[in-house]
Amino acid sequence: MIPVITINREFGSGGHSIAQKVAQKLGIPFLDGEIIDKASKDSGYCNEIIEEQGESSTGANMWFNISAASTMYFQSPQDEIYLSQRKIIIEEAKKGPCVIVGRCSDYILTQEGIPCINILIHADIESRKKRVLDRYGDIKDVAIEKRILKKDKQRKTYYKYYTDQTWGHYQNYDLSIDSGKLGEDRCVELICNLAKSF
Amino acid sequence: MIPVITINREFGSGGHSIAQKVAQKLGIPFLDGEIIDKASKDSGYCNEIIEEQGESSTGANMWFNISAASTMYFQSPQDEIYLSQRKIIIEEAKKGPCVIVGRCSDYILTQEGIPCINILIHADIESRKKRVLDRYGDIKDVAIEKRILKKDKQRKTYYKYYTDQTWGHYQNYDLSIDSGKLGEDRCVELICNLAKSF
Repeated sequence: MIPVITINREFGSGGHSIAQKVAQKLGIPFLDGEIIDKASKDSGYCNEIIEEQGESSTGANMWFNISAASTMYFQSPQDEIYLSQRKIIIEEAKKGPCVIVGRCSDYILTQEGIPCINILIHADIESRKKRVLDRYGDIKDVAIEKRILKKDKQRKTYYKYYTDQTWGHYQNYDLSIDSGKLGEDRCVELICNLAKSF
Repeated sequence: MIPVITINREFGSGGHSIAQKVAQKLGIPFLDGEIIDKASKDSGYCNEIIEEQGESSTGANMWFNISAASTMYFQSPQDEIYLSQRKIIIEEAKKGPCVIVGRCSDYILTQEGIPCINILIHADIESRKKRVLDRYGDIKDVAIEKRILKKDKQRKTYYKYYTDQTWGHYQNYDLSIDSGKLGEDRCVELICNLAKSF
């Protein structure tokens, strides 16, 4: 039976698009924006805040939370959103095979003992710059590289904070693929073939 | 055309056996002990020393070399063996598709601009302990884990010394596979299918 697949990705590596194609090809649900929407309804925060706080971290997570959407706990909005997303990830994975993008899903499902295969998509910086340029248009070259590295750093900090593991460490993944070298189609093929072999 | 494949592996992950099966299935040369033999003839050191020094490091590489097999250069036997293996790896890769195991071959070929796909095989410590136990018999459990971790450390030190890169860092590989989770057959299948797609 096709397993739950988590796809973790460097910013600009095409991981999101690869995950979407894998889900399409295997005919199973794709959970990315979907998770955001559900977490939004559950936590009371609007989509924009969840999108901003839901996978990135500035490191400033511990603060008194006195926002309207929460009560007087020592929990930041980011913590609340994390817990809400965590609940949804577990619920969805328990329903059956699906593709989940990022949001510590590899760690969450492994900790919960829910069978899954964990995949990392990465690429060299030049491929990532090209992809981000193609997607978001003509921002100056130096700004793109800075933006990519900042996004990586935020995701790594977020992952470290909630899992106490190092993002990108090979031992956390069953399969890590360089989409810059192998190309998007080969990545989709590799993941689908692997999934079908279970 | 099938590319040159380098296979890098954690001790006890089954990487050697996977590499051998991939070469067999693709019908291309397999270079592991073969490299050792050739380097041995080239450098003048016997196979036992090459096997000991050819991929492991105690970190004590820089010393005056006054051995019979070499001249009075500031080069250790390990440096000489590395250079000899490096030469052979480049020569063999230039001949055509083959599978090369470890010995910084991923770094050497990439630096030389020789097209190749670089693969890392890793596994959780329990799978590796089981494999080493199956292969080498009833050494006490604690001794096996110590031995595995020591071997990892030696290979990492060796790799760092000659490449100035971190062994196991995901960005050095096109494909990293967990053989403990996926099993040897799936690893062979994945690598062969990838190789055939070029």
